[in-house]
Parts: sequence; C-alpha cells; structure tokens
Amino acid sequence: MADKIEAYIDANQERFIEELKELMRIPSVSAQRAHDADTRACADWLVAHFKALGLEAELVDKGGQPIVRALGKGKSDKRVLVYGHYDVQPEDPLDEWKTPPFEPTIRDGILFGRGSTDDKGQVFTHIKAVEALLKTEGELPCEVLFLLEGEEECGGDALGRYIRDTKDELKPDVVIVSDSTMYDENTPAITYGLRGMAMFEFTIKGPDRDVHSGAYGGGIANPAMVLAQILSACVAPDGKVLVPGFYDNVAPLEQWESDSMAKLGFDDQAFVGELSVSHPHGEPGHSTLERIWMRPTFEINGMFGGYTGDGSKTIIPASATAKISCRLVPHQDPTRIRDLLAEHIRSVCPDTVTLEMSDFATSPPVLFDVNNQAFRAAQEALRQGFGSECTFIRCGGSIPVVSTFVEQLGCPVVLMGFGLDSDGPHSPNEHFSLDSFIRGTKASTHLLRTI
Amino acid sequence: MADKIEAYIDANQERFIEELKELMRIPSVSAQRAHDADTRACADWLVAHFKALGLEAELVDKGGQPIVRALGKGKSDKRVLVYGHYDVQPEDPLDEWKTPPFEPTIRDGILFGRGSTDDKGQVFTHIKAVEALLKTEGELPCEVLFLLEGEEECGGDALGRYIRDTKDELKPDVVIVSDSTMYDENTPAITYGLRGMAMFEFTIKGPDRDVHSGAYGGGIANPAMVLAQILSACVAPDGKVLVPGFYDNVAPLEQWESDSMAKLGFDDQAFVGELSVSHPHGEPGHSTLERIWMRPTFEINGMFGGYTGDGSKTIIPASATAKISCRLVPHQDPTRIRDLLAEHIRSVCPDTVTLEMSDFATSPPVLFDVNNQAFRAAQEALRQGFGSECTFIRCGGSIPVVSTFVEQLGCPVVLMGFGLDSDGPHSPNEHFSLDSFIRGTKASTHLLRTI
Repeated sequence: MADKIEAYIDANQERFIEELKELMRIPSVSAQRAHDADTRACADWLVAHFKALGLEAELVDKGGQPIVRALGKGKSDKRVLVYGHYDVQPEDPLDEWKTPPFEPTIRDGILFGRGSTDDKGQVFTHIKAVEALLKTEGELPCEVLFLLEGEEECGGDALGRYIRDTKDELKPDVVIVSDSTMYDENTPAITYGLRGMAMFEFTIKGPDRDVHSGAYGGGIANPAMVLAQILSACVAPDGKVLVPGFYDNVAPLEQWESDSMAKLGFDDQAFVGELSVSHPHGEPGHSTLERIWMRPTFEINGMFGGYTGDGSKTIIPASATAKISCRLVPHQDPTRIRDLLAEHIRSVCPDTVTLEMSDFATSPPVLFDVNNQAFRAAQEALRQGFGSECTFIRCGGSIPVVSTFVEQLGCPVVLMGFGLDSDGPHSPNEHFSLDSFIRGTKASTHLLRTI
Repeated sequence: MADKIEAYIDANQERFIEELKELMRIPSVSAQRAHDADTRACADWLVAHFKALGLEAELVDKGGQPIVRALGKGKSDKRVLVYGHYDVQPEDPLDEWKTPPFEPTIRDGILFGRGSTDDKGQVFTHIKAVEALLKTEGELPCEVLFLLEGEEECGGDALGRYIRDTKDELKPDVVIVSDSTMYDENTPAITYGLRGMAMFEFTIKGPDRDVHSGAYGGGIANPAMVLAQILSACVAPDGKVLVPGFYDNVAPLEQWESDSMAKLGFDDQAFVGELSVSHPHGEPGHSTLERIWMRPTFEINGMFGGYTGDGSKTIIPASATAKISCRLVPHQDPTRIRDLLAEHIRSVCPDTVTLEMSDFATSPPVLFDVNNQAFRAAQEALRQGFGSECTFIRCGGSIPVVSTFVEQLGCPVVLMGFGLDSDGPHSPNEHFSLDSFIRGTKASTHLLRTI
C-alpha cells in the first residue's frame, strides 16, 4: 500500500508543484495592511482547495486574519491536528531578489519565491499527503484537522484565541507542525526545542525637529548617538548580553544533548561561509550550535534615525529608533525578561532625551521530552520518506503557537520540518528544495498511517 | 543721501518680498539629481534679475552646478565681492512642514519656506541694496561683484575651483558674506570664527543578505549592533569625543572672548526650550555657548540598517550605515582629524564584519582678527541699519568657501548674517524675519557706501 501511495505522489508531483506555485503567487503579507485583500484571497484559495479534495473547510474569523480550518474524517477516531501558516514575510529588500518574490521560479530543482519554505511549501506537503491517501486508499487512516493561520509573521493571536476558546472541542491526539528545518539536506530531523521571543521597539527623542548640526552641535544630546550608546549598554562587543538578570534561568545543556550535538559534527566555517561571513560570533564560552539553539540573544532587527537619503545632510536628528527581538530559551520567563529589558533601557537612558518604548510581543520557549510514541512514529516516517536516519535537534527560531498547543491541548507536538536555515526564510530569494517537498509529502503519508 | 536710500527701500519693500518669494519657489536642491533642472533654473532667474538691474551677469560653468557672476561698476575702483549661495537643503521630512517648503508663506511678519534664511533671503538683501543705490544715486559707490554658488549645501567645489583659477583677476578689497546669524533678533553681529568640517559615512557589512534572527541569532555578529558599538567608542555618554588626538590642537579661549561671551548673557534654558529639549548636553568643562562656538563635535546625521518599515521583521540586517559630520575648530587640521577618525574606527571595528568607509569631505575652521577697517565699517553699517549695537560672535556652522577666500584672496572677509539659528535653516518650516530682511538691506547700503 505504501508503495502505491508513493507511486501516486511521484506520478502527480508536477501538478503538485504547479498548485504550490499558484498558492505562492498570492502575496499574503500579513504585516502590511495594503496586502489584507491578498491575505484573505490566500485563505479563500486554501478553503476551495480543501473542498475540492473532499474535506469540510471553512474560514474562521477570530478578528485579524482568518484561520483556515479543514477536517477530513478517517478510518479511526484518532485525530491529528496539522498546523501551518499561509501568511508570509514582507519581500523587501526587493532589489536583492533574482526573480520576483511572488513569481515562483524553479532553478536546478529549487523553487524560489516568498513562502516557498516558510511556510506554504511545508504546509502543502501535508495537503498533498492527504490527497495521496484519499486517492489511493479512498479514506484517511485517521481524522486530519488542518488549522492554518494567517498571522504567524506579524505576531497576531487569532489562532491562539481560537484554540483557547475551542480546546474542549479540538482535542487532538497529536499536533504536527512543519514550520522548522531538517538538520541538513540529507538528515531529516524532529525539533524538540524552540526559542521564545521578546520583541519591542524603542525611540529616543531629542529636539522637536531635525536641527542644524553646526548651530546646535555640542549644545544638545544627539538622539542617534544616545540610541547607539543604549544599544551598546545592552550587548558587549564579545556578544554577551549585559541586561542584568538576563541569563538567570537559562537551563544548562544536558549530557545526551551534548553527546548528540557532538555527533552532528556542526561545521562553523560552513555555517558562516554560506553567509559570506568570515567568523562566527557570539556569547563567549558556548559553541556556535549551542548559541543558536540553546542560548538567548538580543538582536537589532532594524535601526533608523535622521537623514538616510543620498549624500549628506548636516543635522542632529529629532529622533532615532531601534527594533529589537530577543530569542529566549528554557527556562527564561518572557514576562520577567520583558521587565528586565524595559528596566535596563530606562536605567541607561540619560535625561537629556525622552524614551518611548512600544508594547512587547512575547512568546515562551518550548522544550519537549523526546521519549514518547508520537516522536518515535515520526522518526520512522521521516526515515522512510527521506531514506535516511532522523535526528533530534533544537531550533533557534520561535513558533509562538507551539507553546499555546502545549499549554492548551496537552498532547504531543511533533515538529517535523522539511526546510533548511539556508533556504532564506525571511530573506530575499527564499527557496525550498522540490526534492524535500516530495520526500516530505511521502513522510507525511507514512506518519498519518502509523501515528 | 542715506535717508533717501532708506526711503526707497521702505517704499519698495512689498515688491522686494514678492521677488524673493519668486526666487524661493524654485526648488534648487543641489544634493538631488532630480532637482538639477530646478537648480539651473534658479541660477538663470538670478542672471536675468541682475541684468534687469543693469549689472553684467552670466553663468560660469566650472563643472557641477553653475556659478552666478554679476558685476556692477562703481564710482571708486574699490571692489567688494558679495558671496552667497542660491542652492537649498532637501525639504524632508516633508510632512512636518506647516506650509509647503517651496510655496513661500508669510505669517506674522515671518517668511516661511526653504531658502528663506539659508541663503536666498540673505543674498537678496545685497541684491536689493544694489538696486536701492543704483535707483537713488544713479551709480554704485564701489564696484560690487556677486559670486553666488549652487553647491554650498552639497559640498561641491565649483566655486572653489573658480576662485583658485581666477584669483589674480578677482582681487577684491573685501569679501562680504551673509550666510550666518545675528546674535539674537535685536543684536546684529559680525562672525569672526567658523567651525570647519570632516564629513563621511561608514557601513558595517555582515551576512550577504538579511537573515532570520532565529536561525542565525547568536551565531554571527549583528552589523547594526557593531555599528552602535563603534559609535559608542567614538563619543562617551558625557559628550566627550573619544577619538585619540581629537582635541590636541584646539585653541584655548582668549580672555577678550571670555569677557565678550559673559556680556552676552547666553540663556541655556531658552536655548534648549526653543527645541523642546529639557537640558543642554555636551563635552564636560565647557559652557553651552563655548561648546557650540569653540569646541569640536562628532555628530551622527543619519543612521540606518535592517527593517525600518511598519511592524516587525525578525532579521539580522546584512548591513548598517552611519552618516557622520564632525565640526572642527581652530587649530584642528581637517586632514589630520580625517586620519585620526578613520584610524580609530578601523581600530575598534571587529573582524567579524567588514567596514566600508566613504571619502571624507573636509573644510578647515576659520578665525579672523577683528581689528581691521572692514570689520569696523561693517560694525557701524549694522548699527545704522538695525538701530542697535553690533557684537562679535563665532558660529558653530561651517561655510567652506570662506576658508578658500582666506587662503586665495588674502583680503578681509566680513561675515554679517541676518538670520537666526532658530530660523531652522536645515529644518522643516525654515523661516526669515522680514524685518531683518529690510534692516539687512539697509545695512548693506551703508556698508557699500563706507567700506
């Protein structure tokens, strides 16, 4: 039977890819109000697609972007909840894309375009797995409930509200999430830990307008310089975060993790070489892999103030702004970290300027116990789909909804990603291996049949 | 005779103001290529205006924006060179203008619009002074040579080249410059010192694209953070510049300067209150006025990197850039300061990123001996035109061409400004007092008759 299903996938892969390209052409950029109609159109496209496959599908409105909900009945009552998101990151900087972000293009077996790996391409593996099972076996082995949100990239909480409101009805036996990565292109992986997030921005305000740097230079504080000085008081040149208490509750590395990481043979030079960076850099006393997976960070995502056009303009800027995101790890508490960050920045900001801080968006870090049946079934399904052994990894990124699943649903959450960090999920020229797309689809059919 | 000339100015002031508004409507933004045709049109307008007054006028092309040259013969052979510039700063941020930058508007006797005070309005006092002298006396008391450049706001050197190439022909007895300020609205002033400039930008480059702050955060250096750390290594939180050797050659304050400044009764709180800033700030151990006039600075004019749009984008930026201008004072050498700045930034930049530094634009600081006949004549002309005593001041700004006059022409340069720092010369809602415009025009006629 498994052979017949895999054969169906092989026979139909060209069409699967064309359908995915159609989905990727819809610029569902949830962070930008100008794209609200597109984001809605993308949700509508998915509902229509699920209905065409024979699933019950609808849009759920919990405020914000709609949730796509689709249910396929199964042979057993066991219910698998497949999570994903259909929204994508903004495309800028647009001029760095080799082909347009919303015109999917295949080069050398790689599909380029916004959403290819994050997360339309990965979500589509499970949709096509359901199709393959239905077309070959006539019915699904278990009940499959898709919940695809449209606010993952903009920090919205519509799906969180939906899960909290309907948890007594949802009751899945397991949640499957494909919004993470393999260890490398030949090593499928299950992610057992995610970093959390504390995200905010702050603005330093000085004079009530940009003023002449000759007439006023030396007389008043420069908001851009104050911003730089505050940021420097948050992270030392060696990479250590200087916010008091920041590292207090970070969980130490366990022995099996240390052993497992050693086996992976992570290559620092390959890691930075892929980015054209000469050396890795970060908190002293930890390996690069440890720093990415298991250590918290303080990163500037964006920074601006004063004249940013061509040439020069000799002013003292009226204000300067930094957009910050901190990645959090077990067992840091996002609320406590938020308070520590806000307190530290307020304490180092001088009274020659005014400080405005945004609200914080936070999500807790997640850590799973890998010893359970769902994880073992997923390991085997990935081994079959990809034809190679599956490893356990952590992920430096954050999937806020995963902690909601953990808290609200109390069932195992299996993060089986088919992407790679080098796919450039938030960058220009985002891409996804079509080979991984097909293998992932096969792995999904194996998992739905054995879980 | 002086009464008759002043009466002519009073009788024609409405028309003078309308003509100035016409000049200000031409958006001669020299820094922006999109405005090249406007900048040229502005120069053409001035040539036509001079010709209508009976002067020999032409455009001089030395590459870059054209120079407006106009010569009026006089009763005596004495030659006064009047310098000014017809180009203006960019208008951004546009949304902070109460009325459009290039639609001059009068409110309560104040003329608002880009170029009103810097420098079209100030230049126009001398043009109208020449008109008043010609219309009332039939001829000019001395030869008046206007040289009006179109590259003051973009650091161009066309006028510098022209002066160097024709200095043996130019040979003025005195140069008059009105591109500075009065001490306050009731106190006309002659500026005897200008700060110089060392201007540059530098970029910190990290990964070859913006990358996901989850996947890579903790693994590589963040270029925006490195930029902030380098900037913090250039200026201490107390305002002191940390570049080694920066203050080495700064001239100490002389006793007469100290006495003169004390008499002015500079009001720190009024100075910052006008900007809605709570406290002054700058290098410890020096008064606010001293810091603005006589101490060098390191200012960030603009800074940018990563995601600067609405909402958030969780990336590590590929690069971050700072635009810097240092104001220099006697006897700092711009070339030496350039080398010190470049060396310091290179020395504090870590090898986890790459550093790209632009060429430097520099101009030397200027300091005049106030004990000469031209300064005394100007003092008296200002006293007559404004009806109050004239003081000697320094200026925190830079007028690069003044040092070219000093070096190439070897004659006194009289900086008699009619603006105020609070006119917002490089800011939104730039403005100029029409009262100062008329009084300045009268003072110019007195000076041309007595110099």
